[in-house]
Amino acid sequence: MLTLDYHPTGRHFLQIPGPSPVPDRILRAMSLPTIDHRGPEFGELGLRVLKGIQKIFQTKHPVVIYPASGTGAWEAALANTLSPGDQVLMYETGHFASLWNKLATRLQLKTEFIGLPGVEGWRRGVQAHMIEERLKADTAHAIKAVCVVHNETSTGATSNILAVRKAIDAAKHPALLLVDSISGLASAEYKHDEWGVDVTISGSQKGLMLPPGISFNALSPKAIEASKSSKLPKSFWAWDEMLDINKTGYFPYTPNTNLLYGLAEACDMLLDPAHGGLEGTFARHVRWGEGVRAAVKAWGLETQCIEATSHSPVLTGVVTPEGVDADAVRKLIYERFDLSLGTGLGKVKGRMFRIGHLGDCNDLTLMAALSGCEMGMKLAGIKLAGSGVAAAMDYFAGHPAPVDLQKAA
Amino acid sequence: MLTLDYHPTGRHFLQIPGPSPVPDRILRAMSLPTIDHRGPEFGELGLRVLKGIQKIFQTKHPVVIYPASGTGAWEAALANTLSPGDQVLMYETGHFASLWNKLATRLQLKTEFIGLPGVEGWRRGVQAHMIEERLKADTAHAIKAVCVVHNETSTGATSNILAVRKAIDAAKHPALLLVDSISGLASAEYKHDEWGVDVTISGSQKGLMLPPGISFNALSPKAIEASKSSKLPKSFWAWDEMLDINKTGYFPYTPNTNLLYGLAEACDMLLDPAHGGLEGTFARHVRWGEGVRAAVKAWGLETQCIEATSHSPVLTGVVTPEGVDADAVRKLIYERFDLSLGTGLGKVKGRMFRIGHLGDCNDLTLMAALSGCEMGMKLAGIKLAGSGVAAAMDYFAGHPAPVDLQKAA
Amino acid sequence: MLTLDYHPTGRHFLQIPGPSPVPDRILRAMSLPTIDHRGPEFGELGLRVLKGIQKIFQTKHPVVIYPASGTGAWEAALANTLSPGDQVLMYETGHFASLWNKLATRLQLKTEFIGLPGVEGWRRGVQAHMIEERLKADTAHAIKAVCVVHNETSTGATSNILAVRKAIDAAKHPALLLVDSISGLASAEYKHDEWGVDVTISGSQKGLMLPPGISFNALSPKAIEASKSSKLPKSFWAWDEMLDINKTGYFPYTPNTNLLYGLAEACDMLLDPAHGGLEGTFARHVRWGEGVRAAVKAWGLETQCIEATSHSPVLTGVVTPEGVDADAVRKLIYERFDLSLGTGLGKVKGRMFRIGHLGDCNDLTLMAALSGCEMGMKLAGIKLAGSGVAAAMDYFAGHPAPVDLQKAA
Amino acid sequence: MLTLDYHPTGRHFLQIPGPSPVPDRILRAMSLPTIDHRGPEFGELGLRVLKGIQKIFQTKHPVVIYPASGTGAWEAALANTLSPGDQVLMYETGHFASLWNKLATRLQLKTEFIGLPGVEGWRRGVQAHMIEERLKADTAHAIKAVCVVHNETSTGATSNILAVRKAIDAAKHPALLLVDSISGLASAEYKHDEWGVDVTISGSQKGLMLPPGISFNALSPKAIEASKSSKLPKSFWAWDEMLDINKTGYFPYTPNTNLLYGLAEACDMLLDPAHGGLEGTFARHVRWGEGVRAAVKAWGLETQCIEATSHSPVLTGVVTPEGVDADAVRKLIYERFDLSLGTGLGKVKGRMFRIGHLGDCNDLTLMAALSGCEMGMKLAGIKLAGSGVAAAMDYFAGHPAPVDLQKAA
Repeated sequence: MLTLDYHPTGRHFLQIPGPSPVPDRILRAMSLPTIDHRGPEFGELGLRVLKGIQKIFQTKHPVVIYPASGTGAWEAALANTLSPGDQVLMYETGHFASLWNKLATRLQLKTEFIGLPGVEGWRRGVQAHMIEERLKADTAHAIKAVCVVHNETSTGATSNILAVRKAIDAAKHPALLLVDSISGLASAEYKHDEWGVDVTISGSQKGLMLPPGISFNALSPKAIEASKSSKLPKSFWAWDEMLDINKTGYFPYTPNTNLLYGLAEACDMLLDPAHGGLEGTFARHVRWGEGVRAAVKAWGLETQCIEATSHSPVLTGVVTPEGVDADAVRKLIYERFDLSLGTGLGKVKGRMFRIGHLGDCNDLTLMAALSGCEMGMKLAGIKLAGSGVAAAMDYFAGHPAPVDLQKAA
Repeated sequence: MLTLDYHPTGRHFLQIPGPSPVPDRILRAMSLPTIDHRGPEFGELGLRVLKGIQKIFQTKHPVVIYPASGTGAWEAALANTLSPGDQVLMYETGHFASLWNKLATRLQLKTEFIGLPGVEGWRRGVQAHMIEERLKADTAHAIKAVCVVHNETSTGATSNILAVRKAIDAAKHPALLLVDSISGLASAEYKHDEWGVDVTISGSQKGLMLPPGISFNALSPKAIEASKSSKLPKSFWAWDEMLDINKTGYFPYTPNTNLLYGLAEACDMLLDPAHGGLEGTFARHVRWGEGVRAAVKAWGLETQCIEATSHSPVLTGVVTPEGVDADAVRKLIYERFDLSLGTGLGKVKGRMFRIGHLGDCNDLTLMAALSGCEMGMKLAGIKLAGSGVAAAMDYFAGHPAPVDLQKAA
Repeated sequence: MLTLDYHPTGRHFLQIPGPSPVPDRILRAMSLPTIDHRGPEFGELGLRVLKGIQKIFQTKHPVVIYPASGTGAWEAALANTLSPGDQVLMYETGHFASLWNKLATRLQLKTEFIGLPGVEGWRRGVQAHMIEERLKADTAHAIKAVCVVHNETSTGATSNILAVRKAIDAAKHPALLLVDSISGLASAEYKHDEWGVDVTISGSQKGLMLPPGISFNALSPKAIEASKSSKLPKSFWAWDEMLDINKTGYFPYTPNTNLLYGLAEACDMLLDPAHGGLEGTFARHVRWGEGVRAAVKAWGLETQCIEATSHSPVLTGVVTPEGVDADAVRKLIYERFDLSLGTGLGKVKGRMFRIGHLGDCNDLTLMAALSGCEMGMKLAGIKLAGSGVAAAMDYFAGHPAPVDLQKAA
Repeated sequence: MLTLDYHPTGRHFLQIPGPSPVPDRILRAMSLPTIDHRGPEFGELGLRVLKGIQKIFQTKHPVVIYPASGTGAWEAALANTLSPGDQVLMYETGHFASLWNKLATRLQLKTEFIGLPGVEGWRRGVQAHMIEERLKADTAHAIKAVCVVHNETSTGATSNILAVRKAIDAAKHPALLLVDSISGLASAEYKHDEWGVDVTISGSQKGLMLPPGISFNALSPKAIEASKSSKLPKSFWAWDEMLDINKTGYFPYTPNTNLLYGLAEACDMLLDPAHGGLEGTFARHVRWGEGVRAAVKAWGLETQCIEATSHSPVLTGVVTPEGVDADAVRKLIYERFDLSLGTGLGKVKGRMFRIGHLGDCNDLTLMAALSGCEMGMKLAGIKLAGSGVAAAMDYFAGHPAPVDLQKAA
């Protein structure tokens, strides 16, 4: 047995914005025996997860499930809809938008990466009007796709995807809308069909509460149509065979069976009406985000996201004071309090840390995490304006979860 | 699969003074395949746990492992050493001392139950001088055994067992010393041999971090000698065959194999020098107790135990203000914050609640629990003098665990 | 993590007559988090298992669940119904009947142990007429209880309990009927109420497919009445408080929570109408017993049980030829083929081995076991008359399980 | 919890040639908590599995671990070494060779698919002389890579990879040698370095005993060199960043953490000297293959592979008699005996079935599987020449595993 017992006692608090802690209920489901993926039982499982994941994406169209982690699904979305040399408009909301841009470049696409200057774009959601302006200028319709990140995991800003849709429509532009909701899905509200998204990319290790290892492309009819003339070489990522064979619940090559067990369980948990279903899930995360931001405010610190309408229900980025190395604080907190926090990435490395409140959480888990942050920051010599822990307690006690989300009496 | 999903999301905080949360490492060990308890592999397992548990009790003499929960080990200690009608001196430290007294009566023993009047005895450890006085008066040596509880789970007072030993010695009395350390063992310091205990009773679901289901009698040579003339009828509990067959690592009847896997793992965890061994374990719990009591003091509340030298490292009893129904507060906390606290038992029912800090814990687990208590008490309308959470953060941040108990750098 | 990897590769075949292999489904249930046994969720679990186990015993009267292994339940049955010095009639069907007799003696009961002479009684079920005759002779009604073993695990003979009931009735004798069905329950047909049993004793690690650690007393109103005047000292085993508190689903002392999770799951599995319910379970084991006996016959060997009406559906005892040490054969089979078989006990030590077909089995598991036996016996130099494996294949292929017990098409 | 309880009782026998049954020891490892893949503990895990998997491939050069199933690793091997329009020589050993050929075509490579005519090539390993001849004819060195399957999962023929290497060398041809050992690795002998392979592709769900979801590219320096000028677009599959970041034990994007736990455990199991290490592993599978083929021969049936030097230690293809629908037989066996066998694929659909003896097996598991086959074929009306089960018992009893592979005495 692997020794991962660096942690002397008690449960480690994994409050990074993904991977999120996997509930025991899902670990148990994943321990079911691996079955023949061409045998009689598999089809039933396949149909079940394919239907379940549609509900999570709020789509009536097909969702492709890849036995690969999220980065692969980024590649799949591009490889199925585009051809070498195609022009793509990408918007910089933070580190993950930048990585996707880099990946598109490697795939021999011509990307244009727009956004606010310097670190400004890393503190807000997508500015949809900038997309609208750029598309209006593209009268030749050279741009084949617009790529945006729904929930920017590196900053804690959630973009208004419907506004991006409206921007494209206002520009009367035929570009496809590709959206990364890897960290948003199943924690932040997301409506693939209603928001007119052509491909939504997501992964397993965030709101779905699974280990990493499976990822998704939710499609629109327009995306499927585009895939027929796309010329980027592909086979593993190709939608055509997948969509065909998925009709029976089977897959063209070996699926990640044990993670599909976990996915079936995760869908049951997220959609369970006894806990408010998807709406209840979203409401819980919104409330947790508010509690955590109340703490940050009380500490006298800034959140990385400064746009009131874009605060993420998934994670909160906390900017440390000038001169403080945020990673040194994280290290101290990890070693003294067995709490993992997310690091600052790219442009904001060393300037902030991130508190995850996605996936499987509750008020006391977050109180534990905030206590660890508060004690750690004090020990690191940061002067705090007040107690964030006290503020979060006030918020959580004063704002009960909607009645139907509480336990039955 | 059993539905125990009353809890909508996140991990339940089980902070009762036992059963304590079972670490995943132990659950994994318990899932090993049940083997033939008469087969060649079992003997090795048997010897391993029999040796491991001796180290936990700090004894060189035999420890009997029963495939039965702790109450059975109370009965076993009496049934093996005494005869119907024998006189036994028991000391009232709280509810569990009272239950043991009742059990002794049912076994047809003549018990004498001494202690401080009213609820006074429930706020302190054993007053050893009272035992000494009573034994001195028993010039005929009619009293065959003295029974005390090491860690009184109903109040949070830990008694000085060595003082009781000295009291018996000072009285030059031949009575056996029987000690219940069901909730103390492996969280609070305990030295079976050095303290001159004749039978120590313990169980699995507290400091040993196992589910309930196995229990123990640690013996002295004097206890074994006494068992030879004891006349209480017994078979399942009888030490004689057990001690004989245990020499080879086997048991006279079917042992609780899967819990023994867990016990082997628990011994490894508790004795691991990388985490300070038993001494490190005790130091961790002492520190947690101090942090929790700092919180209670800041709230302006009393702990149930008021004797400075007897505060338990295992649990803390919190007395609620006059007129407040402690169980209503517990219910509110359970329903709003998914935190289980211990109820007031017997004489203090409705007057206090209990916070467990035994077994598998860490600073942030306790911060979560204290946050839940503080929010819940406020919501219940209790006027608190100040923030216990702030006080506990001050304590934990200001008092790091001894250097060798921290993680390796 | 405990190393139990003596087995180099593949799954060990545990075909002893208990503990039987624990299905993964039950191991998963047992890994659910331990809860507060005084908390709001526990009562529901308690009522569920108390009701479920009644169905397994086929009784409308209370069943007591002990957090202790089966030997304890033997003691409980006697301790609750009898008084020191009471006279008990016990019948010798084999080793376990002998152990129970010994236990009764240790409890200060006056036992009379009847049966056929020598090893003859170890090859048959209870001869009910001998009980009838003895009871008729007891005109003073000095005998307070008749104790028989339903399925004698040491031999593979299942006794006709209804015949014993009729024998007692025919003798118009008021003695209680106490029956050990530790290894029979949930594999062999058993009807506590219909057969007029007063106390049935059973355990978890056989037909219930659980690890050892819980045991049962199923009661009759007459047994409960008798308990009120019983004078054997008892507390842990006492029915009175247990029956009282069980009404709400709770227990008077700490129950074995995680094994109760497993018990709830086991009841669901055994009672599942999709697999034929209890009747289907019994039919499966009868069929497996017939297949295994077909193999023994083809080998030209004798089964230990030679009474046609008493062959056990739970296990088969195989008598090895004169001069062959059965334990040496078992050892060879264990080392070469990773198959555990049951040893010969007591009077038949070294003269036979036992093949378990209880609990969680199927045709191919038994074919594997029979192959291991056949290869091992040949390697040990035993001359076999023919291939038992071939005979068992003929039987299993030729006798499909009743249609409603097969998988849905 | 997902219901996968189609199986009424006992353990399902999954004897397909992959996914192979996942040992409980690996399932337990996979249930460890998901950690931060950028945190301090992860690097240690990463280095450990990267080193462990090198030993399994018997290579000193880097092995890339993809969080994706095996088909992806096929794509990766081609995408990293080749450019659009490149010419590739592939050899048809069966269905999986055909699928790889199809995938290469989809990636816009010009493939040439050689082999013996009709079904003849599906009954033998690679005919290395055909490759040598073709390469000699390619004087312009237009062929950039030779692609062969080591263990053809659809037929049960294992090819001589060293012979292919020698053929390329004899032709003095610079083409890269790419080998698929998805089903061979860790069951059949494989020496990446010694055999001069440039890229070996493998996956997790076969000899490594893991669930599907991770896959591998083992590299040679020549392959790495080729990757620098390869022009197929790629990002997820790209080796460059992976090799760079792997040096520290980390990955450029989210790895499949919980499967890496399983991989660490699998390496420990396979390399454990107590069980003979890799050599012991290979010897066990060779022996099992021989036992199974002895059965097929006794039944009077043909194995799909008819080349004496190419019989696979991983699986055995069994050709059913003319006029018998092999899939109908498989279905009967599945429904009556809860045994999954592999179907005939592609050119041999309906003409054969496949028995897996890869991964976690032992003699009795295979005896169970063979019994199920024998009973099922008889029930399906196939006239068998004799008992394969008897022949396999003779083989297994007569050919003990090498002494150092048996259990310690």
